[in-house]
Amino acid sequence: MAAASLAQAPAGTDAPAVLVDPGDDAAAWLPPPGLAVVQTQDALVEGIDFRRDWTTPHALGMRALAVALSDLAAMGAQPHTCLATVCAPAATVADDLLAIQLGILDAAAGVGCRLLGGDVSAIAGPLVVDVSATGSAEPARLLRRDAGHPGDLLAVTGVLGRAAAGLRLLDGDRAVVDAPTRTCWLQAQLAPRPRLAEGRALAAAGIGCAGDLSDGLLVDSGRIAAASGCAAVLWLEALPVDAALKDAFAGWPELALGGGEDFELLAAAPAGVLTAAQASWPAGLAPLSVVGRLAEGTGLRLLDRDGGRALPLPAVRSRHFA
Amino acid sequence: MAAASLAQAPAGTDAPAVLVDPGDDAAAWLPPPGLAVVQTQDALVEGIDFRRDWTTPHALGMRALAVALSDLAAMGAQPHTCLATVCAPAATVADDLLAIQLGILDAAAGVGCRLLGGDVSAIAGPLVVDVSATGSAEPARLLRRDAGHPGDLLAVTGVLGRAAAGLRLLDGDRAVVDAPTRTCWLQAQLAPRPRLAEGRALAAAGIGCAGDLSDGLLVDSGRIAAASGCAAVLWLEALPVDAALKDAFAGWPELALGGGEDFELLAAAPAGVLTAAQASWPAGLAPLSVVGRLAEGTGLRLLDRDGGRALPLPAVRSRHFA
Repeated sequence: MAAASLAQAPAGTDAPAVLVDPGDDAAAWLPPPGLAVVQTQDALVEGIDFRRDWTTPHALGMRALAVALSDLAAMGAQPHTCLATVCAPAATVADDLLAIQLGILDAAAGVGCRLLGGDVSAIAGPLVVDVSATGSAEPARLLRRDAGHPGDLLAVTGVLGRAAAGLRLLDGDRAVVDAPTRTCWLQAQLAPRPRLAEGRALAAAGIGCAGDLSDGLLVDSGRIAAASGCAAVLWLEALPVDAALKDAFAGWPELALGGGEDFELLAAAPAGVLTAAQASWPAGLAPLSVVGRLAEGTGLRLLDRDGGRALPLPAVRSRHFA
Repeated sequence: MAAASLAQAPAGTDAPAVLVDPGDDAAAWLPPPGLAVVQTQDALVEGIDFRRDWTTPHALGMRALAVALSDLAAMGAQPHTCLATVCAPAATVADDLLAIQLGILDAAAGVGCRLLGGDVSAIAGPLVVDVSATGSAEPARLLRRDAGHPGDLLAVTGVLGRAAAGLRLLDGDRAVVDAPTRTCWLQAQLAPRPRLAEGRALAAAGIGCAGDLSDGLLVDSGRIAAASGCAAVLWLEALPVDAALKDAFAGWPELALGGGEDFELLAAAPAGVLTAAQASWPAGLAPLSVVGRLAEGTGLRLLDRDGGRALPLPAVRSRHFA
């Protein structure tokens, strides 16, 4: 009965050929020949990952898909389809359910992804939005966490710490910021954009090692280092952060290093490959910034700069606020 | 982060070639060339779809996958991969979480399906197990709900009403049944088996129209009829039910017609095609029984037998007990 409950997305420019629509028991489509199928699934749980008074149902739907698509971005994959389960308490108004669905549809349509169905269920508890996303990539160009080597530079896309700063503001922090910055940080938390084009650009540049920053640079660089059998060294002064972040939060390194949910990408590659990627980086994409290096050994170290002095690792808050 | 939280299934005999394991941001695998990808997603919510004191965590995991696989069976598809989200309240013991995962793994391994990851989240509320399943089928042999025609016979696999009878027993009904029958009905409710081989046998027999009986014969025959632009006529005396069901429940037609969760398949096909399918039906599969016919028009009618007198449609309970 899965496919009947959520409507079909309007066909995006790159949407796959759908053979059987969501009204059937399941949906069927034709994948691009010769490519690997890439799959992930992520849930947003009210009270753990979001609060309803912080967001709108439409933004929640968009965010639920974005979180799953970020995993596809981190593999260098092109998204094709998604399915969504919404567990909603009885008091949820129908308009809110529809808005969640429209949020998923809108986020999907922008990236050539089709919502193929899913499930809608009652729940005597918090709202749950659980999205699975499926995409494709050339098998030889998949971005893997375990493909780094000692000596590789570590580089991130975009700017770090904005989503964590937005979470602080939502949580009542009275940081002094101007209105555009405030909006930018809140959007980073509530309406993250998956770095799909950046992931494909990394793969196209011959980079083979990457992951997303769903849990923050400290945690996710540790994951890449561990998967690759290396140590990771991060350089605090190299982190791409807003000047306003440093002004507003004395503890900004904790936000930039520990704040999850930026959904930027972290890549590891030899210096020459990375420099070439930066030189040919497509206009309009979030820029690539070198933030550290993989090294022989294990574990994670923080220096003030390349070759500089060691700093204590900041305490990392959970990405969950509950 | 989706793929890191649930372990990988042992390779089944027909398991797909996995290129990137669940420990990465997402998992990647190679689909069979030329086939359609078939996808579905279904959630089991505590208090809505199950009660923890009625089942075990292992059986719950197996059932969560079975419900999703039933949708693939209803498309004639071969399952390849699944992902699972488990939202568990803080009081859930780790052994129970592991048992749910092992239940999914065991159910997957038996049908050549790989668990590729998913998400584990806290929830301040009921336990939720949400499974997405992906399979493949020849595009021209997909079983569709909208492929029926007036005059087609309707046929079901297996026996109807057992899962609903099991639910009645769990709910405290004091129906008088012997122990093996009681066990059989409880198993039908708590440990349904998806009719994967039966779905592929229907497709191989040239049948193009089918769906699963997740919501009961009345609801699901109505769906097939509506999707195919037909009316459906069901014959009460033709329904394959246990003799014990008629003995134990005066209202057995309600269980056989309205009880969902049997997860049998319902097919529509011309009489000649269906007779040939029955004649060549592989040994060991749940048998095919003719239970009615599609007709010109719309809506649903119940007769005592083919060409017999009209009966009132029984009231149908929701498949949800909450």
